[in-house]
Amino acid sequence: MDFSGSHILSIDQFNRSDINALFSAAEALEPYATRKKLTRVLEGAILSNMFFEPSTRTRISFGSAFNRLGGAVRETAEMSSSSLAKGESLADTAQVLSGYSDIIVMRHPENGSVDEFAKASKVPVINGGDGSNEHPTQALLDLYTIKKELIQNNKTLEGLRIALVGDLKYGRAVHSLCKILSLYEDITINLVSPNELTLPKKYISNSKIQINESESIEEGVSEVDIIYMTRIQEERFKTVNEANRYKGLLSLSKEIYTANCEPNTVIMHPLPRDSRKESNEINADLFDNPNLAIFRQADNGVVIRMALFALVLDVLDQVKDTSRKVNWKTTKNI
Amino acid sequence: MDFSGSHILSIDQFNRSDINALFSAAEALEPYATRKKLTRVLEGAILSNMFFEPSTRTRISFGSAFNRLGGAVRETAEMSSSSLAKGESLADTAQVLSGYSDIIVMRHPENGSVDEFAKASKVPVINGGDGSNEHPTQALLDLYTIKKELIQNNKTLEGLRIALVGDLKYGRAVHSLCKILSLYEDITINLVSPNELTLPKKYISNSKIQINESESIEEGVSEVDIIYMTRIQEERFKTVNEANRYKGLLSLSKEIYTANCEPNTVIMHPLPRDSRKESNEINADLFDNPNLAIFRQADNGVVIRMALFALVLDVLDQVKDTSRKVNWKTTKNI
Amino acid sequence: MDFSGSHILSIDQFNRSDINALFSAAEALEPYATRKKLTRVLEGAILSNMFFEPSTRTRISFGSAFNRLGGAVRETAEMSSSSLAKGESLADTAQVLSGYSDIIVMRHPENGSVDEFAKASKVPVINGGDGSNEHPTQALLDLYTIKKELIQNNKTLEGLRIALVGDLKYGRAVHSLCKILSLYEDITINLVSPNELTLPKKYISNSKIQINESESIEEGVSEVDIIYMTRIQEERFKTVNEANRYKGLLSLSKEIYTANCEPNTVIMHPLPRDSRKESNEINADLFDNPNLAIFRQADNGVVIRMALFALVLDVLDQVKDTSRKVNWKTTKNI
Repeated sequence: MDFSGSHILSIDQFNRSDINALFSAAEALEPYATRKKLTRVLEGAILSNMFFEPSTRTRISFGSAFNRLGGAVRETAEMSSSSLAKGESLADTAQVLSGYSDIIVMRHPENGSVDEFAKASKVPVINGGDGSNEHPTQALLDLYTIKKELIQNNKTLEGLRIALVGDLKYGRAVHSLCKILSLYEDITINLVSPNELTLPKKYISNSKIQINESESIEEGVSEVDIIYMTRIQEERFKTVNEANRYKGLLSLSKEIYTANCEPNTVIMHPLPRDSRKESNEINADLFDNPNLAIFRQADNGVVIRMALFALVLDVLDQVKDTSRKVNWKTTKNI
Repeated sequence: MDFSGSHILSIDQFNRSDINALFSAAEALEPYATRKKLTRVLEGAILSNMFFEPSTRTRISFGSAFNRLGGAVRETAEMSSSSLAKGESLADTAQVLSGYSDIIVMRHPENGSVDEFAKASKVPVINGGDGSNEHPTQALLDLYTIKKELIQNNKTLEGLRIALVGDLKYGRAVHSLCKILSLYEDITINLVSPNELTLPKKYISNSKIQINESESIEEGVSEVDIIYMTRIQEERFKTVNEANRYKGLLSLSKEIYTANCEPNTVIMHPLPRDSRKESNEINADLFDNPNLAIFRQADNGVVIRMALFALVLDVLDQVKDTSRKVNWKTTKNI
Repeated sequence: MDFSGSHILSIDQFNRSDINALFSAAEALEPYATRKKLTRVLEGAILSNMFFEPSTRTRISFGSAFNRLGGAVRETAEMSSSSLAKGESLADTAQVLSGYSDIIVMRHPENGSVDEFAKASKVPVINGGDGSNEHPTQALLDLYTIKKELIQNNKTLEGLRIALVGDLKYGRAVHSLCKILSLYEDITINLVSPNELTLPKKYISNSKIQINESESIEEGVSEVDIIYMTRIQEERFKTVNEANRYKGLLSLSKEIYTANCEPNTVIMHPLPRDSRKESNEINADLFDNPNLAIFRQADNGVVIRMALFALVLDVLDQVKDTSRKVNWKTTKNI
């Protein structure tokens, strides 16, 4: 893929070489994401951060990534019903908004809406999540996190062993992660879920991937490099009671971890995690475990989004030229 | 009018010389609006973009215009009921907010509210629409679009022939456009509407303007330079059923256009247009017609708002001094 | 207190020397707050302005203060219920959001929430109001206003005589102001409230402060330097009727002011003030009185917040180096 000027709508657009290019860009931008250096390469550029469905976390992550490159952000945090109620097509909305922006991030509750929007847009569009369909930046930041955590443990994506735990039937993040993992061959995936919530097999398209299925978390988390926990997607069940039946079944605790996991097994979660007693996806006794990578994973979202912006707007090579020192103190005195 | 430091509340403030000054400024700013050049002339300035009524399109257009001049934007997207519920006057709100800002754009559901607000403001206020009263930037961008489209066809505002089609009784955009057209003399306006939705004649104050009225779109759109389509303002009718009676009556299609219009007759619409089958103000078979100017019209909103900001804050002469090249790629690879 | 890198959660953190440091910083920043000079010292820094409860005024004041220092603002204007509904803890939200930001301002409806959030944050957090608990920047800007107004009248905080008028039982601003005034000794406070709405005495912790109580505004406002009016906090009463019983009882008019006050007695109010007839906390006949300091007080909120940002991010010394002239015209032509 030639990133420059392209829409980023689906992880299906990415081959391994694209992923390598993206991750190289992210690594080059790490000093700017972590406030060791400052760049103003996108000074004057405008992101329209159009969230037609509330998602504070993802919205702020995209906006912050654009600000970190020096750009300005215009924003919508919720569906403004006015224009749609007046019968305006998504294509019209796209034509108009793309006249106000240099790049657009769009989140929308309906599957396929971002594709439809992008077709009419005059500027590149990045999919920030369209219903249960796609959320490509989540899969990209997950894979980037896996790679970085593996490197810390002197491992690589070659030979990766990963456990996917929880609601594998409805979890969009897991589906996308499986699609992107299907680009790699020498991989083992342990699928751990209640029998009724198993992964639809279409998401693992590479027949060379070894798959092990289990209902037991103890079994699933042994002999892996990464444990990827997820929450029960209660909004997808017919009744709350039906969803509640599965809550708390697959909970990772220090006891389970210590008894079953190899040393330095990394714990991930796409967040938000449900910390209420009845769910307790990751027990509080694991919070101080240095292998709990969930917040590093969230932080990686910023640098991956910076890398996408820099590649799509074709400014990566210019970042160095605009590099400055950070004026303010970044250490906390608390 | 001396733009510098003035409120922009009504199109009644503008005479032909003001409009010429504004349009000259807009032309000078076109390279910055279209990303051929970059200016940071308002770097450090703060726009408070106070939308006490949702209007994503107009809000983002104003904010984007200010960002394109290098300024920062603070924003409200909806009525925060808190202060008003506590009995605060608009004058108090204005005094306080104007202490936070260098310029304010205000949109409010009540007629006259922006005037009241502006009286107490310490900084210039631009009316972004106050109920059914005024929305001056819409009329200005419409006239600017008419002028630009005419020039493309080797015509000028002198001798303009324009058809206004649709709900002429309730359409605020049409009312304002008629007021501003009344500054010109050698003009012909074809008013095309259902009998019950004709234009209140007070909006055309210049007796030298020639007016033709009709209920037939075929008749109305022949021998004009510009067709200005509008939607039925259903929110102004007592019942939805009453509004629905008029939907679809005045729909422009390729067939009607080809049979009746002169070559290169320009099609405009203030947007949002209703693209549902029952309304279908502009038929899909016209979407590829190069004379369909509706998105150029929306784009012109940005440059007209840039021009207003630059004149009111008196920085137009300094734009050149802050001119830079655009770092990022503006062409799309899709 | 060492401001650099510290959370600002409560006025209890401040001693007199901290207040002096803050007020010195504010004075140094006055030319930048009032647009005589421009600074870009925080260019590239990101404030996450997280308002989980609507408060347009305070939110824009914080955002504008950060913009005036050159920084960018990411924002939430209302509780996004999504993550909390999914069982996410405040600590998780803090960890994630602090990865997107260099500093966070948080407003939240629950007492103690901002403290809990700050504990998990990786970057400094400023309390923008947590329920009825704390709103430290309001107390700081009030004291700064008192000091500045006194200086105008050739007085100092030493020997201050102040009348606090209205709902002293429920008014959070008054409580915080009393706490901060308790750092000073040679002070007289006239408490003027209905018998049922007297100040809980715990808020005045300094036994050397002289306290006079009264139900009469005429008595309370004589022989003071400052009158601090407040509104009836109707949202804290069981019924609207109960709150209404107290409205209008303590209203300051020109007649009362002229008959009882010393020359140049300053009138303050934390705003919003209730200007409806039945409440009328400050009568319209006082609006032109030059001693009415309520909007200067609101303006001071910006410079106090600028000072806090500059101290916490440790950039105050660098402001001069980034000083520029203001490009745009700041005078109004209306």
